[in-house]
Amino acid sequence: MSITINQPLDMHLHLRDEAMLKTVAPLSSHSFSGAIIMPNLVPPVSTKEELLAYKERIIHACGSDTFTPYMTLFFKPTYTKAFLESIKDELTAIKLYPAGITTNSEGGVSGFEVETLRETLEAMSELEIPLCIHGETNGFVMDREAEFVSIYEMLATNFPKLKIIMEHITTKESVEALDKFENLYATITLHHLLITLDDVAGGMLQPHLFCKPIAKRPEDREALRKVALNAHPKVMFGSDSAPHPQHAKESCGCAAGVFTAPIALQVLTELFMEHSTLKNLQAFVSDHAKAIYNHIKVPHKTVTLEKKPFVVPAKYDNVIPMYAGETLAYSILEIKG
Amino acid sequence: MSITINQPLDMHLHLRDEAMLKTVAPLSSHSFSGAIIMPNLVPPVSTKEELLAYKERIIHACGSDTFTPYMTLFFKPTYTKAFLESIKDELTAIKLYPAGITTNSEGGVSGFEVETLRETLEAMSELEIPLCIHGETNGFVMDREAEFVSIYEMLATNFPKLKIIMEHITTKESVEALDKFENLYATITLHHLLITLDDVAGGMLQPHLFCKPIAKRPEDREALRKVALNAHPKVMFGSDSAPHPQHAKESCGCAAGVFTAPIALQVLTELFMEHSTLKNLQAFVSDHAKAIYNHIKVPHKTVTLEKKPFVVPAKYDNVIPMYAGETLAYSILEIKG
Repeated sequence: MSITINQPLDMHLHLRDEAMLKTVAPLSSHSFSGAIIMPNLVPPVSTKEELLAYKERIIHACGSDTFTPYMTLFFKPTYTKAFLESIKDELTAIKLYPAGITTNSEGGVSGFEVETLRETLEAMSELEIPLCIHGETNGFVMDREAEFVSIYEMLATNFPKLKIIMEHITTKESVEALDKFENLYATITLHHLLITLDDVAGGMLQPHLFCKPIAKRPEDREALRKVALNAHPKVMFGSDSAPHPQHAKESCGCAAGVFTAPIALQVLTELFMEHSTLKNLQAFVSDHAKAIYNHIKVPHKTVTLEKKPFVVPAKYDNVIPMYAGETLAYSILEIKG
Repeated sequence: MSITINQPLDMHLHLRDEAMLKTVAPLSSHSFSGAIIMPNLVPPVSTKEELLAYKERIIHACGSDTFTPYMTLFFKPTYTKAFLESIKDELTAIKLYPAGITTNSEGGVSGFEVETLRETLEAMSELEIPLCIHGETNGFVMDREAEFVSIYEMLATNFPKLKIIMEHITTKESVEALDKFENLYATITLHHLLITLDDVAGGMLQPHLFCKPIAKRPEDREALRKVALNAHPKVMFGSDSAPHPQHAKESCGCAAGVFTAPIALQVLTELFMEHSTLKNLQAFVSDHAKAIYNHIKVPHKTVTLEKKPFVVPAKYDNVIPMYAGETLAYSILEIKG
């Protein structure tokens, strides 16, 4: 038996820049039709020139004509409607980071007052530009996302025509928020469907599984699995694949991020198969994203997998992937498009 | 102003063996009058010969006649009363590890049935040998200690004459258990008075602050501070100083343990001073231990500290201490004895 996925999409991806971009971009463009590209470079992508230049560098690094990088800007409350109109055709979404909450987010939003955000968020609503949010407060690490739900709700209420994507959700509280507000959507990563804090810090400490938001409790993972595996229509796959060089992970002060891009489809296939929900995989890794991001054009590509052992490389250049050196149950057999 | 502590005691210490023992033993024997020595070597200390030989190696490594290593055995439910009688004069306590719960605990207890434990625990009660316990279940990492409280209570109820030391407690649930059962006592580490999970994994991941039990929530730290700073008579200082070579901490699969022995008295002085509870420091770092472990002989030693910057070494051989390279407010001025 083989499994074929049409137009797989990764709705939350970090490609970085320069040498790292050259390492990781081909790994995503190989097996995905497109990805939402996070703008947290140094400095963050916040002008039309930066966005277009970054897109060029990505396309050059990918070397594939069946992969579209969907570009995002780093949210600033100073973006005017005129500016957004001028960039709209090149822009798929805008990513909002609370200040200092994760890698390269220092210039993010430091307060969530409606009036400060109103001009930009109303312009985005009118122009139908989705707002992607890294939803964490600066509270205690296990509570940050649950505490942020009230901000999601405040934004959803005040900007009812704005599509708000709760990125890489990790808690049952975020899952519950999905059904309370029509304009809240979510991405879920591969690793948050698989691990809890036990996998990060329950045995030996595992820096390669350390990410933000940090993996939470078993009941949180259960809530995520429930909506992902059962094809909740407001939930889509976003890997949050976030490469760091090995030395930045295995050191005193380890950077946050799990690198999953090259193994995501294989492991998702196994997970959905194990839970007898394979029929929902296509929706999770593509169809829901196309419906939610209804303006995107998606290159034609099909990825066929089969049950055949795949040994995950120990490294991709100097980046250690999740399951490095381990054997996965499913392999990619063929990619067409 | 200077502060003088009489006969400081560290009631939970890992000295390891061989080269590591030679590195760390002098750092404890320098500033403490004695310490309870944990038996989790490979293989664990579980015979009279092993205990005496380890004690010899410790004394040799310490090179101090004003430091007593209080020796412990690794608990086994096969210890008979006759065996314990034969070793009683050399033994201060017995340490119980649930199987596989921390460094070198593979041979620990895998079930807590009263009848299995009865012979050994009744013998210990009669011979007045305290039982030190690493109290964690194999549950979710943030719940393990709270889940273990029912086992503490079961043991306290069934063996009312046994002194049970809840080692390195980290939760408000363990603090609450202290006052419910006359025969429950506790050690608290330096690091659990200072850090929460936020310090370990809230910013960058900090392998040198990763330990077992893992640091918990702010309200847990508050509960620990309350009993330590206010001189709860059943609470004593036990550093759980647990050295690992740098490569075992800064790697994929980091070992659990924080190395605090050489900075403990300086930082405790600062902490108690900050909280205007300096008058309770002597009780926490010595008097309570002498009252609880009422059979021990404590070498005479006084340690005098003053408010003067102390730059913590970046390393002690290949071991990174807590606060490596940082400047502490208090220094050791003089040690007599």
